[in-house]
Amino acid sequence: MLPEHRRISRSRRWFLRAAALFGGGFTALKSTSAAAADLPNRLGGPVSAYGSRSRFEKALRLVGNPRTPQAASSLTPLRDSHGMITASALHYERHHSGVPDLDPSTHTLTIHGLVNRQLVFTMDELKRFPSVSRIFFLECSGNTSSEWRGANAMDVQRSHGLTSCSEWTGVWLSTLLRECAVTPAGMWILAEGADAARVARSIPMAKAMKDVLVAYAQNGEPLRPEQGYPLRLIVPGFEGIINIKWLHRLKVIDQPAMTRWETSRYTDLMPDGTSRIFTLEMDVKSVITRPSGGDRLPGRGVYEISGLAWSGRGSIARVDITTDGGATWSPAELQTPVLPLAHTRFRASWNWNGGDALIASRALDDSGHLQPTLQDLVKLRGLNSGYHNNAILPWNVSSTGAVTNGL
Amino acid sequence: MLPEHRRISRSRRWFLRAAALFGGGFTALKSTSAAAADLPNRLGGPVSAYGSRSRFEKALRLVGNPRTPQAASSLTPLRDSHGMITASALHYERHHSGVPDLDPSTHTLTIHGLVNRQLVFTMDELKRFPSVSRIFFLECSGNTSSEWRGANAMDVQRSHGLTSCSEWTGVWLSTLLRECAVTPAGMWILAEGADAARVARSIPMAKAMKDVLVAYAQNGEPLRPEQGYPLRLIVPGFEGIINIKWLHRLKVIDQPAMTRWETSRYTDLMPDGTSRIFTLEMDVKSVITRPSGGDRLPGRGVYEISGLAWSGRGSIARVDITTDGGATWSPAELQTPVLPLAHTRFRASWNWNGGDALIASRALDDSGHLQPTLQDLVKLRGLNSGYHNNAILPWNVSSTGAVTNGL
Repeated sequence: MLPEHRRISRSRRWFLRAAALFGGGFTALKSTSAAAADLPNRLGGPVSAYGSRSRFEKALRLVGNPRTPQAASSLTPLRDSHGMITASALHYERHHSGVPDLDPSTHTLTIHGLVNRQLVFTMDELKRFPSVSRIFFLECSGNTSSEWRGANAMDVQRSHGLTSCSEWTGVWLSTLLRECAVTPAGMWILAEGADAARVARSIPMAKAMKDVLVAYAQNGEPLRPEQGYPLRLIVPGFEGIINIKWLHRLKVIDQPAMTRWETSRYTDLMPDGTSRIFTLEMDVKSVITRPSGGDRLPGRGVYEISGLAWSGRGSIARVDITTDGGATWSPAELQTPVLPLAHTRFRASWNWNGGDALIASRALDDSGHLQPTLQDLVKLRGLNSGYHNNAILPWNVSSTGAVTNGL
Repeated sequence: MLPEHRRISRSRRWFLRAAALFGGGFTALKSTSAAAADLPNRLGGPVSAYGSRSRFEKALRLVGNPRTPQAASSLTPLRDSHGMITASALHYERHHSGVPDLDPSTHTLTIHGLVNRQLVFTMDELKRFPSVSRIFFLECSGNTSSEWRGANAMDVQRSHGLTSCSEWTGVWLSTLLRECAVTPAGMWILAEGADAARVARSIPMAKAMKDVLVAYAQNGEPLRPEQGYPLRLIVPGFEGIINIKWLHRLKVIDQPAMTRWETSRYTDLMPDGTSRIFTLEMDVKSVITRPSGGDRLPGRGVYEISGLAWSGRGSIARVDITTDGGATWSPAELQTPVLPLAHTRFRASWNWNGGDALIASRALDDSGHLQPTLQDLVKLRGLNSGYHNNAILPWNVSSTGAVTNGL
């Protein structure tokens, strides 16, 4: 028997030699011309001004708290997502007072505080500045909090659905800050949204000057309302909530504002009763999205294992796959281009022998951080925490083909 | 006065020094705290299962031939697009018999002809093969045909809207062909769609084995119906129609099938009365999308010039910008990552002095092809042709700020 690292292989040639293992094999064609009996022979639908998806497609965002849907979250259906880009209609949501209905013709961005020139920008003015487009992931720091004490979520949408990835377009915040001439005392920036809750977070000036975007577009279109239309701060790699939606105000300040969203919430309670605050960078993380919880494999044979990896500290350097519960690991293929601070799709072929198996992925980023086991994470952080769970989540494949949470 | 190549600059620092040239300057803030009078103070909308865009956004695909909308085209609103990815709902269309309503649970792909194993694949079987995601542009070879005899289209949607760019996910066609064991006589592949017209095109085997995708997903979701749901051939860099939608049949053949779509249509009539056929690769091309036809600049000052460049022969190596009708050119900034066979966003800052100006872009690809002027294209191809117009399209900016077709 081959060792595990030989049995899982990135080679397409290997897959093809194993293709006979497909359950039952492919359907052989019975005649030399393709059957056309059931194909359309009438005109189909017309061209349309704005498209929508097929009536056969059912994947939806799952609403986290349906009792107060204005202060709730909705989860991206990761199992039914493909590639690196998340469809905008399925990008996860987390709102604290609902989605405001803002008119871009009157919306403005004010920059004030410790600056020499306090300025108000209209949307048209912002669009005259040099623009930039980047593909970045977002992740709520509460993503996967359900799994802190072990297996809970039944599928990958419920366990990991608070992350998505888009191409964002806007102006570098540094461009606007230079326009306002920040004074030497300006060390932080308070960013505030125009939602009723006025969600506000403090951002270190070094980050603001490095790679923060004042974004007005997502995946080729203007931002979606639930993603901050018409203006959102994109703080690449930092926890979701700091990417302030419906952005209307940036105040340059000398120390963090200590808002409720960075003191009573979005802090990490440690075993000794103290809290870590301003844990801003999202840790290296990955998950297998297919096969995943709720799937049922139709029979032994070759499957593609596919998933997503990301890190708030840089680029994904490697993703390893295990199919024996962590005894052995071998590298998955990474979808190129591998972009910093973006979802990276990984893939591997797996020949399932029909027995029980525990499959999982483990990501390494180019800052040297390796995704931990839940056991290692709890050893460090205790059981009082909810935010920033980046632990490995294994899926259990039973001999029936049923896939369940394997934590 | 600075020479032109100094006045147009990619440097953000240059832009900032020029920011005082903004018409009227920015609005100075009147007090030290941002006005909040008009901001929402009530709960907004709830989370939702599948999002839609803001009611304030109006950009739509423009329908090319509204009398027979089943055999027509619709155009991407390029002026209002951002970045590299086209929103799926706004991806251009070209149908020959309308959009069929196909059920993925019964849809199959048949591969037959000169193969040792003729096979029928279900959608579920196709998704078990090793998958791949790539960002590729599509362009109808009829794009910009309206401008062959000079200025015609009033805006960039009408002149260039038959191109879009998406992240596509599927199986390499080569993987499926190896599974079927193509015989040595198999030199071409006939790909046929399941639309009523059974649109069919012949593809050289070398291309099929190189980088052709059998795609089932676009921008993270399943394909949109008008883009071939549930299955489309993606033939990167080749003219749009050969990217067969609603793909249901691939026949391996020994010579091109000479279908009506590669003989009476989609061929290029030359001045001597002969036709070029199988002109498959899309030529290097670019266009300024903003400012562009229909825009009205509010006043002299600094503007961002932005647009798209692409080539069916590889990656964009350089885009030059002129603002004096071609007398002088200087390089634009290219959005990274610059991907082969994908749209590349380019940008430059321009300080408009308020006088008449003729602005244009000119792309060079890494195969060494340079985008021609219309005059040079006509010299070679004559006036009988309509397909494959990749000529430079200048925009005229008048002293009123009005932007019009400058051909």
